[in-house]
Amino acid sequence: MNAPALAPSPRADMTGLRDLVAADLVAVNRVILDYAHSPIALINDLTAHIVAAGGKRLRPSLTIAAAKLCGYEGDRHVRLAACVEFIHTATLLHDDVVDASDLRRGTATANAVWGNKSSVLVGDFLFSRAFQLMVADGSLDVLKILSDASAVIAAGEVHQLMVSHDLAITQSVYEEVISAKTAALFAAACELGAVVSEQPQWRGALRDYGHHLGMAFQVVDDALDYQASEAEIGKAIGDDFRDGKVTLPVIFAYARANEAERGFWQQALESGEEIGADELRRAKELLVKHDAFRQTITVAQSFAKAACDALAPLPDNAVKQAMIDAAWFAVERSH
Amino acid sequence: MNAPALAPSPRADMTGLRDLVAADLVAVNRVILDYAHSPIALINDLTAHIVAAGGKRLRPSLTIAAAKLCGYEGDRHVRLAACVEFIHTATLLHDDVVDASDLRRGTATANAVWGNKSSVLVGDFLFSRAFQLMVADGSLDVLKILSDASAVIAAGEVHQLMVSHDLAITQSVYEEVISAKTAALFAAACELGAVVSEQPQWRGALRDYGHHLGMAFQVVDDALDYQASEAEIGKAIGDDFRDGKVTLPVIFAYARANEAERGFWQQALESGEEIGADELRRAKELLVKHDAFRQTITVAQSFAKAACDALAPLPDNAVKQAMIDAAWFAVERSH
Repeated sequence: MNAPALAPSPRADMTGLRDLVAADLVAVNRVILDYAHSPIALINDLTAHIVAAGGKRLRPSLTIAAAKLCGYEGDRHVRLAACVEFIHTATLLHDDVVDASDLRRGTATANAVWGNKSSVLVGDFLFSRAFQLMVADGSLDVLKILSDASAVIAAGEVHQLMVSHDLAITQSVYEEVISAKTAALFAAACELGAVVSEQPQWRGALRDYGHHLGMAFQVVDDALDYQASEAEIGKAIGDDFRDGKVTLPVIFAYARANEAERGFWQQALESGEEIGADELRRAKELLVKHDAFRQTITVAQSFAKAACDALAPLPDNAVKQAMIDAAWFAVERSH
Repeated sequence: MNAPALAPSPRADMTGLRDLVAADLVAVNRVILDYAHSPIALINDLTAHIVAAGGKRLRPSLTIAAAKLCGYEGDRHVRLAACVEFIHTATLLHDDVVDASDLRRGTATANAVWGNKSSVLVGDFLFSRAFQLMVADGSLDVLKILSDASAVIAAGEVHQLMVSHDLAITQSVYEEVISAKTAALFAAACELGAVVSEQPQWRGALRDYGHHLGMAFQVVDDALDYQASEAEIGKAIGDDFRDGKVTLPVIFAYARANEAERGFWQQALESGEEIGADELRRAKELLVKHDAFRQTITVAQSFAKAACDALAPLPDNAVKQAMIDAAWFAVERSH
């Protein structure tokens, strides 16, 4: 029994996880390039743009790490990690259309370059490719995990659309939305590690780890949308605010707002009017004034802790340590 | 050997097919309603709108008929027919966003009522639901057929986007596009009938029938876009023309056009300028002048004939007769 393994390393970061998955991630990137290829030039241009923009490959890294934690030594996890990334990329393409975003990961979004039509259709193509890859893998368990996750994600995105511009939403509705739109794919990505390893007894624990990590990750992302500089997070600051998304920091600040401040939030988020730099500055001031960032980070910390606790039944080793450090890093990066 | 079975009935129509599938289609509609349901109100509103608009349910009818032609007596075909309709509906939702259509099947499109965002996301939801249904059915053959078809459809839609506004495309490129965007799902819908019946020897024949029927159907649709009245086809006339889609009637008329006429087509389809009633009237005149409708229908007839020929190896019976009549009706409805 190696008790300290459940505590984060002194400086929690992603290096452990990144090193562990590096070699397999090269193979994942190769599968992604192969399967994103098509005789249709526009598909290649657009997918090359997304693949080049790269991103952190966080979700496929989780599939790889979870498989390693279960002692898996085959190579099915590589293709399944690529499936996870395809579903994530398809979601991003459709999100960027829905949000009319111009910047993602520090690069122009596909819809800004090629238009909404291409983004919708290439998203559909990548989503189909994910299912073709799963069929080639041949496991109905895998197909169930990822088709369920896809339905939950889509429903979560619609839910988010329904409650945007609505300052009456509670923390619990907010958590429902992010559980569906973000944490479901993290949970699925991790659960796949137990499935390929044929260690069904660890499916639940890995799924829980993924779910809580995804929650922590999204909560922090929603804080960063108001805090970070564009250079740091590689997307436009204040996007959520401009889109009228009522995220956790806003829920906290609105709960403590005086009448004038409530009027400001209503005007900014519910009226659908154009939002400028002044409004964004004022929003940040109110978030600081009411301690909303600190409250938000406290929530993220409790999700990170739950993620680590979920791994308790699994053997203590370097992979587990890296996954625990990653969970804490998800919160650390915010402050 | 019942030779006349390969010829159409004196008045080829859809009644035979419609009667044959009517009872099973009630069950399909029930599955569609059950699986389109979600705790998210907006999903229900939007899917209820699409389901109410109804449509002909042609593709699921083909799955049912093909299963019956193979002598199938179980009930798996009902759920798979619903999968086919979900994939079709998801495609329509995304198409209407891409084409910015306001009218489909005589009703306002979902994007005209709820906006593009909802259409993209609910399309994703229905697409995921289709895969959940297939997973519940449990056949990797089915999953392969429909994930392959989905990837082909998405690539075909992107291909169509690439070649729109391009009067240089040939009949062969046009056929490639419609084979992918339309005929692939018809082919898959029919092939499923052989799969559920465990009659693999008929997969190829049913797939060929579906492919050629889909080709005939789309070619005729592209003629109707210039010919029919809005009341007849339930969508706005001249949509393809306004979208700059170069369809078969245009390819034929452009090939025989004099210099002034070529200028007209280029101005109308390649310039991206707003198109009015005058341009549409002029386009129709040129299609008539150069016999483009008749040429287009000749192509559709040859596809309908190929569809019927594909069924030759299968037993002659009432189901086969209904499928043959349906193929000829696909062409008949145009003139």
